[in-house]
Amino acid sequence: MTEPAVRRPKALAFDVFGTVVDWRTSIARESAEFLARIGRPDIDPHDFADQWRRRYMPAMATVSSGQRGFVKLDILHREMLEAVLLDRDIDVSTLDPAMLADWTDAWHRLDPWPDAVAGIARLRAAFPVVTLSNGNVSLMIDMARRAGLVWDAILGAEYARAYKPQPAAYLATADALAVEPHDVCLVAAHHSDLAAARGCGLMTAYIDRPMEYGGARAFDADAAQHWEYRADSLTALAEQLGC
Amino acid sequence: MTEPAVRRPKALAFDVFGTVVDWRTSIARESAEFLARIGRPDIDPHDFADQWRRRYMPAMATVSSGQRGFVKLDILHREMLEAVLLDRDIDVSTLDPAMLADWTDAWHRLDPWPDAVAGIARLRAAFPVVTLSNGNVSLMIDMARRAGLVWDAILGAEYARAYKPQPAAYLATADALAVEPHDVCLVAAHHSDLAAARGCGLMTAYIDRPMEYGGARAFDADAAQHWEYRADSLTALAEQLGC
Repeated sequence: MTEPAVRRPKALAFDVFGTVVDWRTSIARESAEFLARIGRPDIDPHDFADQWRRRYMPAMATVSSGQRGFVKLDILHREMLEAVLLDRDIDVSTLDPAMLADWTDAWHRLDPWPDAVAGIARLRAAFPVVTLSNGNVSLMIDMARRAGLVWDAILGAEYARAYKPQPAAYLATADALAVEPHDVCLVAAHHSDLAAARGCGLMTAYIDRPMEYGGARAFDADAAQHWEYRADSLTALAEQLGC
Repeated sequence: MTEPAVRRPKALAFDVFGTVVDWRTSIARESAEFLARIGRPDIDPHDFADQWRRRYMPAMATVSSGQRGFVKLDILHREMLEAVLLDRDIDVSTLDPAMLADWTDAWHRLDPWPDAVAGIARLRAAFPVVTLSNGNVSLMIDMARRAGLVWDAILGAEYARAYKPQPAAYLATADALAVEPHDVCLVAAHHSDLAAARGCGLMTAYIDRPMEYGGARAFDADAAQHWEYRADSLTALAEQLGC
């Protein structure tokens, strides 16, 4: 897949959940164990993962709207988990808090897509590669160390103290990199994220991840635009960028 | 050198200038070229490096005192450079701004001490390793990429928006790592830095760098205390920590 020549970015900033790692399979795998432990093996773990993730945008919106101050995604993940359990009539107050903390930390243990580690390593040889994720710093560190991912810096929401798609998240990342927004390319599997980045002047690279939702249509499929780069893996993006 | 058994940290946070990289030799090497270019090869480059660095603490103090808002170290380095040139009766307004920017960026191109890359790689196999430096994010990224250093995250002053030895710089780093301050060990060649970290509850590892000031006595030599770890290289620290 060869794209027409476009300006070369000076740095690559990565969305992570869905773009670099397969959150759904990983959260389902972990949740299956925890659900069995609490005596609810009847709950479908993939459905559980989807329900947990479905609360992601509304949870961040409470911060982005100013309704509450910035809190790390770990905090939101815990609250979202408790809400999903409550939806299934599970009384959270009866559960071991240490187990709930460990369950929440499942988001620190997501597996990378098969091309991610090699693709990012190739891209890193030519460009600074940073995270521009809503995940907090310790989550990103744990995930990267477990997966063998190497980042030049962990930027994004916690650094900016603003969640995507708030402009501050994208602009603070460019500022930390000391480059103009138009010299940063966001690499993401989500059209809505890319659209917000483009709105801030960033370049965009779309990575197609048809299995992110287990094959179901993405919530933002209608937001597709013509992005500067488009690839079906991070190794293919490296190829396009001549890495 | 075997130390008595002490509690094991959960993460290592590194001072960088002087601890990981030899700023004086590198700044002197770069400044020799720039001084020649502006027709001042008479100025001793090591003395020039010392003069530039001498303005470091007072420059950061203007931020820490609240006299001005937080600005990145790159900005302070540029102002400090202009002041040192002025001290030598060099009219900065006659110099090429691009050259001054490049000269300032010499701080992005510091060489690591001979043991640093291998030592940090060994330590990283067992602990998350992050920067807890006053250097800004893009400076740290450039330096690490050039030197072949790998960090799990770039934390410290810019993340905290506070310069060491302000407590916020140490405490924000522990917070980002999601561990208690007493589970973070600051690794530094400077007693004053370690003392401030200890004041915030961090563990401490002193790295002896007798050549940091070209063999001259360190400004904070009198602030020595009994630190949890003490080593004459980062590989020796790795040895002590069983890495």
